[in-house]
Amino acid sequence: MVSLLLTFEMLYLIGLGLGDAKDITVKGLEVVRRCSRVYLETYTSILTVGKEALEEFYGRKLILADREEVEQEADNILKDADISDIGFLVVGDPFGATTHSDLVLRATKLGIPYRVIHNASIMNAVGCCGLQLYKFGETVSIVFWTDTWRPESFFDKVKKNRQNGMHTLCLLDIKVKEQSLENLMKGRKIYEPPRYMSVNQAAQQLMEIVQNQRIRGEEPAITEETLCVGLARVGAEDQKIAAGTLQQMCTVDLGEPLHSLIITGGSIHPLELEMLNLFSVPKNSLESQSIDGLGT
Amino acid sequence: MVSLLLTFEMLYLIGLGLGDAKDITVKGLEVVRRCSRVYLETYTSILTVGKEALEEFYGRKLILADREEVEQEADNILKDADISDIGFLVVGDPFGATTHSDLVLRATKLGIPYRVIHNASIMNAVGCCGLQLYKFGETVSIVFWTDTWRPESFFDKVKKNRQNGMHTLCLLDIKVKEQSLENLMKGRKIYEPPRYMSVNQAAQQLMEIVQNQRIRGEEPAITEETLCVGLARVGAEDQKIAAGTLQQMCTVDLGEPLHSLIITGGSIHPLELEMLNLFSVPKNSLESQSIDGLGT
Repeated sequence: MVSLLLTFEMLYLIGLGLGDAKDITVKGLEVVRRCSRVYLETYTSILTVGKEALEEFYGRKLILADREEVEQEADNILKDADISDIGFLVVGDPFGATTHSDLVLRATKLGIPYRVIHNASIMNAVGCCGLQLYKFGETVSIVFWTDTWRPESFFDKVKKNRQNGMHTLCLLDIKVKEQSLENLMKGRKIYEPPRYMSVNQAAQQLMEIVQNQRIRGEEPAITEETLCVGLARVGAEDQKIAAGTLQQMCTVDLGEPLHSLIITGGSIHPLELEMLNLFSVPKNSLESQSIDGLGT
Repeated sequence: MVSLLLTFEMLYLIGLGLGDAKDITVKGLEVVRRCSRVYLETYTSILTVGKEALEEFYGRKLILADREEVEQEADNILKDADISDIGFLVVGDPFGATTHSDLVLRATKLGIPYRVIHNASIMNAVGCCGLQLYKFGETVSIVFWTDTWRPESFFDKVKKNRQNGMHTLCLLDIKVKEQSLENLMKGRKIYEPPRYMSVNQAAQQLMEIVQNQRIRGEEPAITEETLCVGLARVGAEDQKIAAGTLQQMCTVDLGEPLHSLIITGGSIHPLELEMLNLFSVPKNSLESQSIDGLGT
């Protein structure tokens, strides 16, 4: 097999997949090992291993790139990409949960060719729970609420998806390089420890939205009994999947990040249900419970 | 890094990604090389290289498994998976376009543990055209029409997606191990050459549906001017992407299979549009054309 990859100097956007260092593709690894500089994007997702484990496996140094750097110093990242290969590593797929279109467009404007080396992302790997991927509607993001900012607007999309019988993948918030209000106001670049929303937290926020809608006299699109699926560390050896009611998602223990949550679409295909039963919590069949969503 | 993968004998469902032999993950390759038997699923998708190229790269023999075998002889595939590792290779991701839930459920019933090694599939790799993945609605399949079977029902899903401002990924038909009517009736296991639907063929069928709806006095959800994206060999080095009207998709030359088609959702984000302009056909900006879908 002759690879043409070596012919041009360019920007490579390389997906790392979801688990650990070995989830990179063989092609991706070859490119990483020969690039003159390799950046590791750190703000949209994480692997179960850190930068050091990746560096050890790749046998080379990586440059961390947070959102600020990618957005404000894209030209530094692209520097010399016309005369040497530059790698930009993204957990999941480069065009997965978040788009890296901006970097591609900047490269193109500078006349730098680019190439994407795809990998699994949560957007397709969620299929492992048994829900059929083609039946997913619009993906939503659930952000950490604060005392003063408690957005509910994403809930309309869940409603629309359910009205159309579609499942909703909820991507859960990640806070990295977050500054406390005090440090932010004083301009001190001191950052809080990273935070990753758990399925429990997401489910609790959803329960509160349901309650709020009831108080306002609205008919909520989901209830405490709606069938949901919590997923943790998808693709890793210790991945966990739990299928149960929204209420159960408030307390199920899925362990370390990253977590994702699926709100099922109301009508579940028998084959989907059979797969979900492998992951039901508590460990009795989902069919024996009065769960909203099991009318098929 | 110590891998725990070696601990249990089990069934491995391994995604191969989309391009060639080197799109397997490092983890997947390690598993393939040590399994006692490895099957290659041949009916849902294809790579740009064949079985021989894979065998050469993996350094081992593969057993082809068509739909019939997987469905009717699953027990053979699973034989001895409790005492040795069995690999089952799927182009894309094992839970991508088509579900392989059935094999997983059979393994589980036999007490055989399983593990999924994810990879890119068309379901997430289409993000490379610049359309945002979270804005895709239900995925549809477009099948080859015959003289007597010309289904249009999938078109309702396109309509619903567009009403909700969502893009529609259309997976295009694959016919492998197809028998002519004569051979089928005579019980002869002689198969026609494989057929893969092109973007041109899909667009032509869509145009006919639009015409039929007009004849019936219905308002079609799309027109000849609707902005579409044709994709060919996504993830391969010679991948091609073309953005233009449905009309243009009828004649655009994207080369060899596999092809996919996206019908955009009506309202395109400026960043999406800027990316699509990299692939516009003919080579003038999409903004200068009277294309349906560019109202933002």
